This record gives sequence, structure tokens and C-alpha cells, in this order.
Amino acid sequence: MAEAARLGAAARGTTAPNPNVGCLIVGADGDIVGQGATAPGGRPHAESIALALAGERASGATLYTTLEPCNHRSPRGPTCTDLILASGVAAVVAAIEDPDPRTAGEGLQRLRGAGIDVRLGPGADLARDGMAGWLTRQALGRPRITLKLALSIDGKIALPSGESKWITGEDARAHVHLERAHCDMILVGRGTLAADRPKLDVRLPGLEERSPRRALLSRGEPVEGWEMLRSPADVFRLHDVNDLLVEGGSSTATAFLAEDLVDRILLYRAPIIIGEGRQSVGYIGLDAIGDAHGRWEPRDGRQLGIDRLEVYERVRSEEN
Amino acid sequence: MAEAARLGAAARGTTAPNPNVGCLIVGADGDIVGQGATAPGGRPHAESIALALAGERASGATLYTTLEPCNHRSPRGPTCTDLILASGVAAVVAAIEDPDPRTAGEGLQRLRGAGIDVRLGPGADLARDGMAGWLTRQALGRPRITLKLALSIDGKIALPSGESKWITGEDARAHVHLERAHCDMILVGRGTLAADRPKLDVRLPGLEERSPRRALLSRGEPVEGWEMLRSPADVFRLHDVNDLLVEGGSSTATAFLAEDLVDRILLYRAPIIIGEGRQSVGYIGLDAIGDAHGRWEPRDGRQLGIDRLEVYERVRSEEN
Repeated sequence: MAEAARLGAAARGTTAPNPNVGCLIVGADGDIVGQGATAPGGRPHAESIALALAGERASGATLYTTLEPCNHRSPRGPTCTDLILASGVAAVVAAIEDPDPRTAGEGLQRLRGAGIDVRLGPGADLARDGMAGWLTRQALGRPRITLKLALSIDGKIALPSGESKWITGEDARAHVHLERAHCDMILVGRGTLAADRPKLDVRLPGLEERSPRRALLSRGEPVEGWEMLRSPADVFRLHDVNDLLVEGGSSTATAFLAEDLVDRILLYRAPIIIGEGRQSVGYIGLDAIGDAHGRWEPRDGRQLGIDRLEVYERVRSEEN
Repeated sequence: MAEAARLGAAARGTTAPNPNVGCLIVGADGDIVGQGATAPGGRPHAESIALALAGERASGATLYTTLEPCNHRSPRGPTCTDLILASGVAAVVAAIEDPDPRTAGEGLQRLRGAGIDVRLGPGADLARDGMAGWLTRQALGRPRITLKLALSIDGKIALPSGESKWITGEDARAHVHLERAHCDMILVGRGTLAADRPKLDVRLPGLEERSPRRALLSRGEPVEGWEMLRSPADVFRLHDVNDLLVEGGSSTATAFLAEDLVDRILLYRAPIIIGEGRQSVGYIGLDAIGDAHGRWEPRDGRQLGIDRLEVYERVRSEEN
């Protein structure tokens, strides 16, 4: 299942509006006979690709998938449940149930009803991590929103002049490009557009084709090549974006944080002190320190060359 | 030597103006027959204490010390070199040479001349870490200066109102108290004094007696119980302070950083976002991002409860 999750996670940013599922088929003799991830654009599905590869060797095999196979009819072809039933697969292991109400357990139920050995749950955390964008969209009706910040020790994003090249080093910037490749859309504010004219492309060997759509947070005139969001709440209109990366600047970061529309923070921390400079975040509606606690959980931390990556995730609970 | 370094490091903050040396004596039969660290106030020296404990069992023993034994006469008693010569010790292992020009290798030379087996160098890094305060004073003519900052993810030290209780949690605050116990003096600015009336004492079981001297950075009227520094450069007058801890607030931190009078930063990072608030550091004379690089090196990083401790040390080289 770990390998299926890896296959699915690698497809993050390319499959919206569909989930980036990973699938692996192990034949009756223990060999891997098929594998796949949701194709760019969302079709074919991972199971369909893996089953096509396996062909007759699917007979008696075990199919691992990060998401319950789909069971809702589509004019674009048979459901994965139908394909599995036709394949002769003997066992299906699914990491998580499909939250889509059109499937929601019915796919696994049909497989069980046909005598297939079905297990649900193994690798669920890995699968959820890999499909976090799509799952957020299912749960909250909007993309998973990641805020990227490149900060000094003292939390500044630029000198008072706006100079910010370069706070972080090459390794951190390469990591940003990798993260871009795994998002469907990148958003900046008009200030960043005017100051930096950012390309927001992916400059990593082999991933140049993975440059995501570009969006601008602005109430002003449209800019060619950029999709427009007039306010952070417009993310609820992005039905074909699983993962949105908000890259700056301070006003944009502040607007999304103030609306509680950030799920994850990717913070690249450079070992420098800027002192007087542009702050990373402005007023987000906080009036007591106590209210700031319990909202963010450190999820990852590691060195990227001279810089350090800190990853925080929003704790979503009743109280917050 | 690691144990001798541990003994010495534990005495940090209590021995100024003398170095916090650690000493261990291993008898001819392999047993530890004596140990010690510089006593509070700086005397007796570590070697003297360890030799007194060892008594006649020092004969034929090996003496480990984090610093070359002193060789400059004092009206307060014999030098450690004399004591060692009289003890019958067969071998001396010293981590580093005494930079004090009154000894500077002469102690070890005299021991060698008397037929004692002398080695210099083992455990030098550990010893330097443990005596960093005193060594800084020898090298730069002022204490080692540690700046403590308690910051949010976005680098704020308080809300606009000044409210800062509590950004960090209990584990981080306990660590601050431990760090206080290892400093000779703590300094704050008048703003912090007025706002917080800080006691700056050590509230750790068994270490209550280790509360350091308190100093105020201010050009104003003296305050009872507080030593006065009129400017950061006054640290060059602190001849009896090995380790100075600068605890805040922002103006004080900025003043010390602007004068390049910070050797180490202890940063307690809370997983909260404050947004609009008081910045940690103001203008420090930086006019280009490039000039900010290469000055600070991450030396330690670890979780303290929900917070993270980041330790940075100033890189001192020709160019910086």
C-alpha cells in the first residue's frame, strides 16, 4: 500500500478535479503485475490503468488502491468497480472509503457481494496525506490551501525597499518548485505581480510540464494569462482545483489567514536577521495571545541547505 | 574528558571572572579519585578541588582538565601547576591552552619539564562550548552575549497592545530559567522593566540560588537592585561577567544586534501566528539582503513541548 500511496502522491497537482489515486496489483505468485496513478486531467483512473497493465494476470491477484474504487456511472466509461469485477481479482485492499456520496462505501459493498475479499484501512494515513487536496475539497468545498512563506529568523519577507532576493538559498527554492509541481494552481497578489513579475513556473528537470495555473488576488482589471480571484472566498468557486498554493505577498497571506482559509503553511526559514523590513503577516483579527494557540501543528521540519523548512497544518476542530 | 567538560559546563554562570573549568582525576588503578569544577566566585580552582579530594591517590594518576592549569602567581595561594607538581600526578590531559598571557602554554611546559606526560587537545570542542563565555571575554574583552527571543511563527514578540503572555509554553519557559542559571548577568530594557516588572530569577528546583545579577539598558535614572548600562558598548566594562543574557524587548535586541554585540541567539518559536504585532527586531543597519547572509549559523534545534528551540551562533570571520 505504501507503494500505491507513493504512486498516487506523485500525481498530486495533475488530476483535478479527480483524486490522485495510486493503485498496485500483486499477482497470485507475488509479482507486481500492474500499477498506476490517476492520469493527468483525472482519467483514466488508477485502477483502470493498473488493470489494463495486468491483463489476464489480474486473475486471482490482490489490488491495492488508496481510495475505494468508484461505483458511480459515467458516460466516459465503466466504473472501476465494474472493471475489477470483470478482471478476476481475488482481493481488494483500499486505504480509505470514497467520501463522494455517489460511491461512499457502495463500491466496496458490491465487490464484497461478488465474493471478493475486501479490506479497508491499511495505509489510510499515507493515502490521506497524498490526497489531502482532493479530500479537503470533498470536505470543505474548496481546495486545500497551502501558504508559502520565505522568512528571516525575525519573520521578515523583505527589506523596507521590497528587496527580497534572495532570502532563501537554492535548495529551498528548488523545494518550492517541487511543491509548485504538486499544486493545481498558484496565487499571488497584485503587489507581488507588479514587483516581481513572477513566472511561477516549475524549473526542475523533468517537471517543466507541471507548471500549474496562475491566479491573481485582485479586484482590479484582469491580467492576461492569470485567472482572477476577487477575494479569498472565491476559492469556493474553484471546483477544478485540489491544491492551491498561495505564494504572497504579505497582504495576500494576511487576507487568507484572516479568513481562516489556510490549511498548511510551508515556511522556508533563512538563518538571517533582517531587522526593519516588511512583515510577513498583518492584522488577522487576533486580539488575545491565548486565541492564537492550538490552531497550528508542526508537521515537518528539516534542513534544506542553509535554510530550514517548517511545515505547519491547521488544526481543525470544533473549538477552532 | 567528556565528564570533566560536563562538570565545568555545569558551573557556567557562577565562576566569573574566572573560567568554569572542570577537572577529573583517574587513579593508577582506573578509579576516579577526584573531581571538581571551579567554585562559585572563581576559587578554589577545579584542579585544586579535585587534587584535595584525591589526596595521596593522585600519585601516579592522570588528571583531565578542560583548561591548561594556571601558572601565574597569586596572593590567594599556589598555582594549579604547583599543586599538580606536588601531587605526584603522572599524566595531565588538557583540552585547551589557557589564553591568559600570564599562562599561555607555560603551565603545560613546566609540567612537561618535570617529567609529567602532557597531552593537549582531547575534548577541545566540548571544553570551548562549556567555557564559551570566559573565552569570549578573553578574546574580545567583553562577555559572551546571548540574545533570548520568544517569537511567533511570523516573528512577533507581542500584540500591538504589548500583550505577550504567553507566547511560549511551560517547557520553553523552564528552559529560559535553566539558561538564566548559567549566566552571570541578565539585561533588559526600560520598556520591558516598565511593562513586565520582570524578576528575572531562576525558578527551577535546586537552582533558585543561581539567579544572576540584573542589569538595565537605559540612559535614565538608576533603579534599585539593577546595574545600569547606558549603551550596549558598556559591556566592555563588565570585567566580572562571562555570560550575559539579553532578554528584551525589541529596542534592546535591536540595539545589541545593530552594534554586532550578539554572539548567540536562543530563539523559542511558538507554533502560533500573531499577525499585526510588535516586531522582534528593528533597523540594524542592513541595506541589502546579501549582507545579511553568512552571519548566523544554526547550532541546535529541538522541540520544547509545543515550542521549538532554535540556537544560532554568530559566525566570526574576517569578512563579517
